[in-house]
Amino acid sequence: MPTSASVLFCCPHLRLTLRLFNAFPFRFRSIRPLCASHASSFTSGDTAVYNSNSLDKGNSIAHKRHGGLEAFSSPTVENVAIDVNPPRGTRDFPPEEMRLRSWLFQNFREVSALFAFEEVDFPVLESEALFIRKAGEEISEQLYNFEDKGGRRVALRPELTPSLARLVIQKGKALPLPVKWFTIGQCWRYERTTRGRRREHYQWNMDIIGVQGVAAEAELIFSIVILFKRLGITSSDVGFKVSSRKVLQAVLQRYSIPEKLFGKVCIIIDKMDKIPKEEIEKELTMLGIPMEAINGLLQILSLKSVPELEEALGSDADAVDDLKDLFLLIEQYGCSNWIQFDASIVRGLAYYTGVVFEGFDRGGKLRAICGGGRYDQLLSKLGGEDLPACGFGFGDAVIFELLKERGLLPELGPKVDYIVLPLDPQLQGAAAMVASTLREKGRSVDLVLENKRLKWVFKHAERINASKLILVGDSEWQRGMVRVKNLCSREESDLPLHELE
Amino acid sequence: MPTSASVLFCCPHLRLTLRLFNAFPFRFRSIRPLCASHASSFTSGDTAVYNSNSLDKGNSIAHKRHGGLEAFSSPTVENVAIDVNPPRGTRDFPPEEMRLRSWLFQNFREVSALFAFEEVDFPVLESEALFIRKAGEEISEQLYNFEDKGGRRVALRPELTPSLARLVIQKGKALPLPVKWFTIGQCWRYERTTRGRRREHYQWNMDIIGVQGVAAEAELIFSIVILFKRLGITSSDVGFKVSSRKVLQAVLQRYSIPEKLFGKVCIIIDKMDKIPKEEIEKELTMLGIPMEAINGLLQILSLKSVPELEEALGSDADAVDDLKDLFLLIEQYGCSNWIQFDASIVRGLAYYTGVVFEGFDRGGKLRAICGGGRYDQLLSKLGGEDLPACGFGFGDAVIFELLKERGLLPELGPKVDYIVLPLDPQLQGAAAMVASTLREKGRSVDLVLENKRLKWVFKHAERINASKLILVGDSEWQRGMVRVKNLCSREESDLPLHELE
Repeated sequence: MPTSASVLFCCPHLRLTLRLFNAFPFRFRSIRPLCASHASSFTSGDTAVYNSNSLDKGNSIAHKRHGGLEAFSSPTVENVAIDVNPPRGTRDFPPEEMRLRSWLFQNFREVSALFAFEEVDFPVLESEALFIRKAGEEISEQLYNFEDKGGRRVALRPELTPSLARLVIQKGKALPLPVKWFTIGQCWRYERTTRGRRREHYQWNMDIIGVQGVAAEAELIFSIVILFKRLGITSSDVGFKVSSRKVLQAVLQRYSIPEKLFGKVCIIIDKMDKIPKEEIEKELTMLGIPMEAINGLLQILSLKSVPELEEALGSDADAVDDLKDLFLLIEQYGCSNWIQFDASIVRGLAYYTGVVFEGFDRGGKLRAICGGGRYDQLLSKLGGEDLPACGFGFGDAVIFELLKERGLLPELGPKVDYIVLPLDPQLQGAAAMVASTLREKGRSVDLVLENKRLKWVFKHAERINASKLILVGDSEWQRGMVRVKNLCSREESDLPLHELE
Repeated sequence: MPTSASVLFCCPHLRLTLRLFNAFPFRFRSIRPLCASHASSFTSGDTAVYNSNSLDKGNSIAHKRHGGLEAFSSPTVENVAIDVNPPRGTRDFPPEEMRLRSWLFQNFREVSALFAFEEVDFPVLESEALFIRKAGEEISEQLYNFEDKGGRRVALRPELTPSLARLVIQKGKALPLPVKWFTIGQCWRYERTTRGRRREHYQWNMDIIGVQGVAAEAELIFSIVILFKRLGITSSDVGFKVSSRKVLQAVLQRYSIPEKLFGKVCIIIDKMDKIPKEEIEKELTMLGIPMEAINGLLQILSLKSVPELEEALGSDADAVDDLKDLFLLIEQYGCSNWIQFDASIVRGLAYYTGVVFEGFDRGGKLRAICGGGRYDQLLSKLGGEDLPACGFGFGDAVIFELLKERGLLPELGPKVDYIVLPLDPQLQGAAAMVASTLREKGRSVDLVLENKRLKWVFKHAERINASKLILVGDSEWQRGMVRVKNLCSREESDLPLHELE
């Protein structure tokens, strides 16, 4: 039984246990009818709490043949009515959703392999300390953290990079550089779901550790371009906005702003798209940044071309150097039409130190599709020794919105080679042998496990998209044969077992 | 900063922040030297807390070219020393581990596809209520549960079946039966790690919903046999012990034991291997089972053949029916040598109602490799309507122990088609273009992103197991050519870009 508070309402012929879940005080989250005649459908917010369909059938299906435990199956007060939906902000993946997820992940994996990146993974549960930073990042404030039974502060990972950094520190000199790793993992953030945002998503990360130059950033951006192309997305659908944190740093240095404010300033600037300019100015002022510096900062951040930046910062500025090198490489890659300079891009993670970039949809409706950058100082922040490093995160949420909007979602149905049907329950073993023969040849076989009519089988075959149907009948079987029907051409023939393939 | 207690030791030229983690009171779990000259290696239990190797290099690699942020990289007291290991009882998957995991998962997926099962998944975090049962199961007692920020009781899933049941209830009549689903997911249990057991593992589940007869159980067992065969494991390495919960039920009925004790009796009986017989008797007595019934129970549980069982229970017993049918099917499958009846098998999950089985290693050293059974009444326990159902769970831990012991672990190295090396930093863009051409043809290409010597490149090529090396040199490139070296045959030749494949 759950430990949440329960309230019991009783009436002579209607017994309802109305259970108030702590999670949503004063809202009914789950209801369990003990009397089918009073069953009704309840919803709470976006959550269908009880599927009223499932109340009609009773226990009519179960135990017809294998009776004997009926006494245990009648509803008793010990049975618990659970919310049939996954926890708020999380997803189930029934087959149709899972096929799409697997298709996307397969694309992530194949692109990573083209670039000779190796796959790694880390625990979804990490020490909280790994993720706590003081720069005011959203990601740090929305940690799904708790104390485990041993009193440790732990958290469901909100991102993958700190775990990767931890593993790099752990491996130390045993790890040959450069490291080129990718990960596909679920990440969690506890945020109010009012904006329709979920609390978990899957993220594809690619990281390069041990390379100083922007050839690394170019390689990362190019791998995302290859992914987009595979998915059918063009440079007229999406683009990359690129800048460097060194732009901000140069401005801070110009106005003698203490360097320790760098991370916090970046996090405030990152919110420019979302909150009014006055609010940004106010937050920067509260950090102690003088108005003159704020104006200088905002002016620089409005620049949209590298030549303008060069004019503003001077040609010897590191930021200018990096960005010129990067844009030249991208041009040589033949990807100039995908990329543009935008000084306002700073990204919302405190640890970036150099080039930062994000993928955006040109329609302007969606949040960033992906984002990344250089984080040359994350390792020392976690107690290790620094190594040059860069990487990106690419979530599964926005890309699916984009694919859907552009009509680019593939139609991925089930696909089965054979259905095998025993025409008599006595032939179940024979049918199993037929299935087994085909499976040993690599065919996918749906073996019918119950006594079913042909009509049902044809309908079922259509649903699971089977190519052929094999009927195992007594007279054919005695001659070592089975009947094979091609469900597309409707041809049929009797074949001996060893000729099936 | 983590919220765990910190103790600060100071001395004039040695500043050590010694941090005591709450988790293991009175044991140092993490140490972060801020002064390299006093660095030392600390271990705690099975945990190498600090990798002393990584202390020597200082910040010598980073920022040689892209200076400008050095001021931010010097260690300050704001930097946090994290434990470089994953949380106790959990694993990282560096490339060499990940390759093995992916290989195993690929086998799970391919076998599931041969049997026409569709992949599904559920959130790793579920409502606690989904997993709380009162039968005294280990799995329920070791829940990784906590209260989230919204006050909900949630838990990291300890198993996959309840989530599957939840989704089946949610889908209701929209779900065509039978359902044949598989899942590969991470499961968590919070147990003391003293026995060297981990707190997470991955589990492969296959479930059939909507089929009453034991043809379903046979199909499940046969799919595991196919998996074993693919991994190189034979019936002389492993076998299945099979029984039915209906055996226990028949005995309870014979002695008029209240049916509500069924689940609890099963959980006690399941511990027979692990605790002394006297303890089992004591626990059953405490449940109120009379000694006569206990003796009858233990006698039946010692039976090792279906004919003996038939003699004890009578030929009209459901358990006898089921088991005879199942063994006949398995024989027709040609798998009799894999399977044996063992009345003492009951499995440790309260919800099983019929056939139960487990895969065991004949060497007798390992825990159960996999286990499953029929759970026809789980859906009503969760507030839904019952459907006949069976499934199994197959973890990634014991199978790897077995494969290792038998020398069956595959040697899975990295594999790359090409390394591309620009012989001059000016040719980085040209090299990128070469890499791009090859990737568009589906080749995996490791592009060298820094100015490296040939000696390093050959060593690197060996490490990543590259087949060919492409040198992009100025004079060849001006003629539109690159130098291609076959790293196995040592042959080399100059080729134009479009002839690469």
